[in-house]
Amino acid sequence: MKTSTVRQKALRDYLKKSSADAIIIPSGDNHFGEYYQEYFACRKWVSGFTGSAGTLVVTKKNAALWTDSRYFVQAENELAESGIVLMKMRVEGTPSIPEWLKAELGTDGIIAIDGQIVSKSEFESLSKALIPLVLKSVQDPFGEIWEERPQLRFNRVFSLDIHLAGETVTSKLVRVKSAIPTCEKPAYVISTCDDIAWLYNLRGSDIPFNPLFASYAVVTKDKSYIFVNEGVIEDALQKELMNHGVEIMNYNQIGKFLTSFDQNFSIIAPPDKISVSLYNQAISGGARFIADESKGGITGALKAIKNSTEQNGFREAMKRDAVAWVKFIMFLESELEKASGNLTEHLLAEKIAHLRAESPDYRGESFHPIVAFGANAALPHYSPSGDKPVSICKECFLLVDTGAQYIYGTTDTTRTFALGELTDEQKRDYTLVLKGMINLSRAIFPKGTRGSSLDFLARGPVCSAGKLYSHGTGHGIGHYLCVHEGPQSIRMEENPVELKPGMVTSNEPAVYVAGSYGIRTENVILCKEHEVNQYGTFYNFETLTLVPVDTRAIVVPLLGNEEVEWLNNYHRVVYNTISPLLKKDEAEWLKSRTACIS
Amino acid sequence: MKTSTVRQKALRDYLKKSSADAIIIPSGDNHFGEYYQEYFACRKWVSGFTGSAGTLVVTKKNAALWTDSRYFVQAENELAESGIVLMKMRVEGTPSIPEWLKAELGTDGIIAIDGQIVSKSEFESLSKALIPLVLKSVQDPFGEIWEERPQLRFNRVFSLDIHLAGETVTSKLVRVKSAIPTCEKPAYVISTCDDIAWLYNLRGSDIPFNPLFASYAVVTKDKSYIFVNEGVIEDALQKELMNHGVEIMNYNQIGKFLTSFDQNFSIIAPPDKISVSLYNQAISGGARFIADESKGGITGALKAIKNSTEQNGFREAMKRDAVAWVKFIMFLESELEKASGNLTEHLLAEKIAHLRAESPDYRGESFHPIVAFGANAALPHYSPSGDKPVSICKECFLLVDTGAQYIYGTTDTTRTFALGELTDEQKRDYTLVLKGMINLSRAIFPKGTRGSSLDFLARGPVCSAGKLYSHGTGHGIGHYLCVHEGPQSIRMEENPVELKPGMVTSNEPAVYVAGSYGIRTENVILCKEHEVNQYGTFYNFETLTLVPVDTRAIVVPLLGNEEVEWLNNYHRVVYNTISPLLKKDEAEWLKSRTACIS
Repeated sequence: MKTSTVRQKALRDYLKKSSADAIIIPSGDNHFGEYYQEYFACRKWVSGFTGSAGTLVVTKKNAALWTDSRYFVQAENELAESGIVLMKMRVEGTPSIPEWLKAELGTDGIIAIDGQIVSKSEFESLSKALIPLVLKSVQDPFGEIWEERPQLRFNRVFSLDIHLAGETVTSKLVRVKSAIPTCEKPAYVISTCDDIAWLYNLRGSDIPFNPLFASYAVVTKDKSYIFVNEGVIEDALQKELMNHGVEIMNYNQIGKFLTSFDQNFSIIAPPDKISVSLYNQAISGGARFIADESKGGITGALKAIKNSTEQNGFREAMKRDAVAWVKFIMFLESELEKASGNLTEHLLAEKIAHLRAESPDYRGESFHPIVAFGANAALPHYSPSGDKPVSICKECFLLVDTGAQYIYGTTDTTRTFALGELTDEQKRDYTLVLKGMINLSRAIFPKGTRGSSLDFLARGPVCSAGKLYSHGTGHGIGHYLCVHEGPQSIRMEENPVELKPGMVTSNEPAVYVAGSYGIRTENVILCKEHEVNQYGTFYNFETLTLVPVDTRAIVVPLLGNEEVEWLNNYHRVVYNTISPLLKKDEAEWLKSRTACIS
Repeated sequence: MKTSTVRQKALRDYLKKSSADAIIIPSGDNHFGEYYQEYFACRKWVSGFTGSAGTLVVTKKNAALWTDSRYFVQAENELAESGIVLMKMRVEGTPSIPEWLKAELGTDGIIAIDGQIVSKSEFESLSKALIPLVLKSVQDPFGEIWEERPQLRFNRVFSLDIHLAGETVTSKLVRVKSAIPTCEKPAYVISTCDDIAWLYNLRGSDIPFNPLFASYAVVTKDKSYIFVNEGVIEDALQKELMNHGVEIMNYNQIGKFLTSFDQNFSIIAPPDKISVSLYNQAISGGARFIADESKGGITGALKAIKNSTEQNGFREAMKRDAVAWVKFIMFLESELEKASGNLTEHLLAEKIAHLRAESPDYRGESFHPIVAFGANAALPHYSPSGDKPVSICKECFLLVDTGAQYIYGTTDTTRTFALGELTDEQKRDYTLVLKGMINLSRAIFPKGTRGSSLDFLARGPVCSAGKLYSHGTGHGIGHYLCVHEGPQSIRMEENPVELKPGMVTSNEPAVYVAGSYGIRTENVILCKEHEVNQYGTFYNFETLTLVPVDTRAIVVPLLGNEEVEWLNNYHRVVYNTISPLLKKDEAEWLKSRTACIS
């Protein structure tokens, strides 16, 4: 019997024992971040499907897995012989999970879901959609049935020095407390580890790419608490936190702690960032619940505005990163000349990480690197694999999208290199993507502008050629935190969050030609105050990234004069800032690659 | 005693008699359009304040009037000695109406409002904001106290021929019916006169600028009704309507008619477009109410998509209009040369109306004309007045924003003319406004794009100079209907309505320099399908307006090559389309004014 079939059987035994008719197994953990520990990879464990996004549903008889178009091929392979039906999301005719469950179970049935990893708001909307079926929050069904389950990791937590964080914990706590809605006795509950890391000036290493540690926090009017696993914060750091009035509690005690709040208290949390289990515990002592409906929550909104120390940290990180990029591009060029045929995507992904690691302040990659040659780059979320090496030669484009964590900031840069002769269409597409990137970089906009108002500056040039990229133009970026951070964004979809000085966002228009090539050019931009006058306040962007843009594929007449001027000026800044950090031959190389175009 | 004081006293007597403690008197009528008959000008009658926007509140002791910044000066003058306090909206420290009423009345009081002119949704939100005060819907308080009240006008209704409307009433009814939400026995109630005019291919003349007639409509699965004043539809037209299955009912019977729907029926209406009186009548027979929450309602959404006949009608209207504009600009230029000093804003406003009236298909102005010289143009809603003539001379800019109703379409055009020597700043501003107008005109965008995504194409160039216009970039325009029509818009604010082929919208970036000058350039654009390919469907705009743009103030290097090319091509189209309709000297003049720039 196949592994998945055995595991499904164990799950069906669990269903029987717990009087449920089906179980929904989403991807994720109790902290609602982008990455989670292997301990929580239950959906993968049962189904065998390894993609990052997917929800498995198992009834007593059948099973189905919902995932999106990125993973259709992979899921079909990985689910083969498992008996699990692939449900292609956003494809006509695919039922939603509630529709499918109603078809399977009729009007009567109890659906289990792990209450620890589903948020209060998700649980409520799912419950509503499932009516007349009943959704029941259960506690970790896999505790009993997953033998040899990986342990949860609780690594040592370290302090981010004030000269890197730029604001004391005490000061941050004052600002969080003053942002809590007015009510009698508030207790603000934070489940998101990046918000907690920011608030307490701490970092960790429990999950990949994001320097976070498993934790909860609670802030009341006169106290603040952090819940971490015993022993992860060493004594000296404990004392430091206690000096800021922070009480350190045991990670496993958060639920019990919340039950102690009685009817005199108001428990406040973003309803999409508190598990339904924790919510149930929080109100069980009699406290009333107030939803923090502000996008990203109170701490998310404060964290998004980088202070001047953090901004300078980003600038420093970008310099370190640019040095690695220069060395990387030189390596790429010289290897291509050798034509030994040994150059692979995977090797290049490792190369840039090694070059970054030459900085003592490097702390790892900020996301899984994308190094995509030719047609591979047409898949926006492609990752090179060491198992099936893809050789690179002097043809088409190479797209490299990588980022790093430095102790003073997080980077995320994409460059697309013209490796060989290009068609006119390829050159035009390359130029239009660059034009969009420059348009957004140059924007001056009034206070109150949302990212959705600016998206088309970057997207429009690509659309003018009847092409599209189906992702956003920009995501927020954390300060030595998550490379994907909210609450702001720059995308077509409405997001009510206004862009504000101090916000750091990516700027990454692109074009993908299926089966042929992909182009993306990405800088990181910082929102700043530009001018205050009788019309009001205007903002603009400072481009933080300092990596040369390949000028070989540019069709200059497709750029306006101001756009050419912007690029030449950008390259001047790149050269002047980075060349002092380079060896002589590297600086000379950079001079040639940052030469003016006209 | 001042007139207003006497009238306030009458109103206070009414309050006493009807056991109310205060009354709220908004601006508007029972059809929720932009204009209303003098009969409904109750707020003006009591207060003496003549501005288009304002709400009067009268308690037993005091009175206050809320209006916006456009009217602060005017209201201060007109309210002098009335005892009515001016409440400046959106100024810090100004209480809202509920706040003020609570301060006046404490926790106990009944507030009256005319239930005929307040929508269900407004009534509900106001009721909520007034708690613990009680809002009560009353029936027309002015019926008794306003002696010599103007009569309601019910002018003759006329038919819009099928060769102008492009779709039969029967066909429109089929489409409305199929858009009604699924429910047992639906009755869709329409109170908005432009939707009714569109649905039944009728036009009227009861109010200024909008060719509408007072009416209601109800559409059920198998019938449709129109409620108009007796005698306004002549027999032949009655028969025509009856052939489309339309039953003609008496205007005053709508309320009684709705009470006849029992619990087997669902009354459906947009809650912001049905009066609370009518709503109360509609549910009094036992019918349940279903809110049509779609923006603009079912008929509004259908009406916004102009069919090919309507589109061709717009094209024809734009030709007629352009001929008048050419003559108008020639007149302006020659009068300026004469330097007699007799040229006034008011005279020019009359002149363009007279020139338009030379077309037999002209049916009047589509809005109050704006002809604003110099600093007057810095007020976006300025109107010239015959009482205080403003002379025009060879200086600064003249802004002319006017529009017309033709039987085949509605126009709305703004041109700003450079009358004399300009400063570099004025020329730059003029060019940036034009650049924004061209940017939006050239946009190519994917299906699904909302107006808010495109707004910044037009607004961005002005912002780049640290300036702003505080209004939207584009409003929908009706087909021989209201010049301001929903549901789509092109503005910074989120509006979930997607732009679709057939939608007609204005494109009017601007800049206003207080006390000095104003610039606005406005064309009307039609959304069209541009391309369908493997990426999806793309839309673009056809510019409908055919009026030359003053090229004298353009700083050509501030425009990109593609923008210069667009303008030259636009002028080529204007000349080729309009010159055959002109006399020889006019055509020659137009040739010179549409010459290429470079």
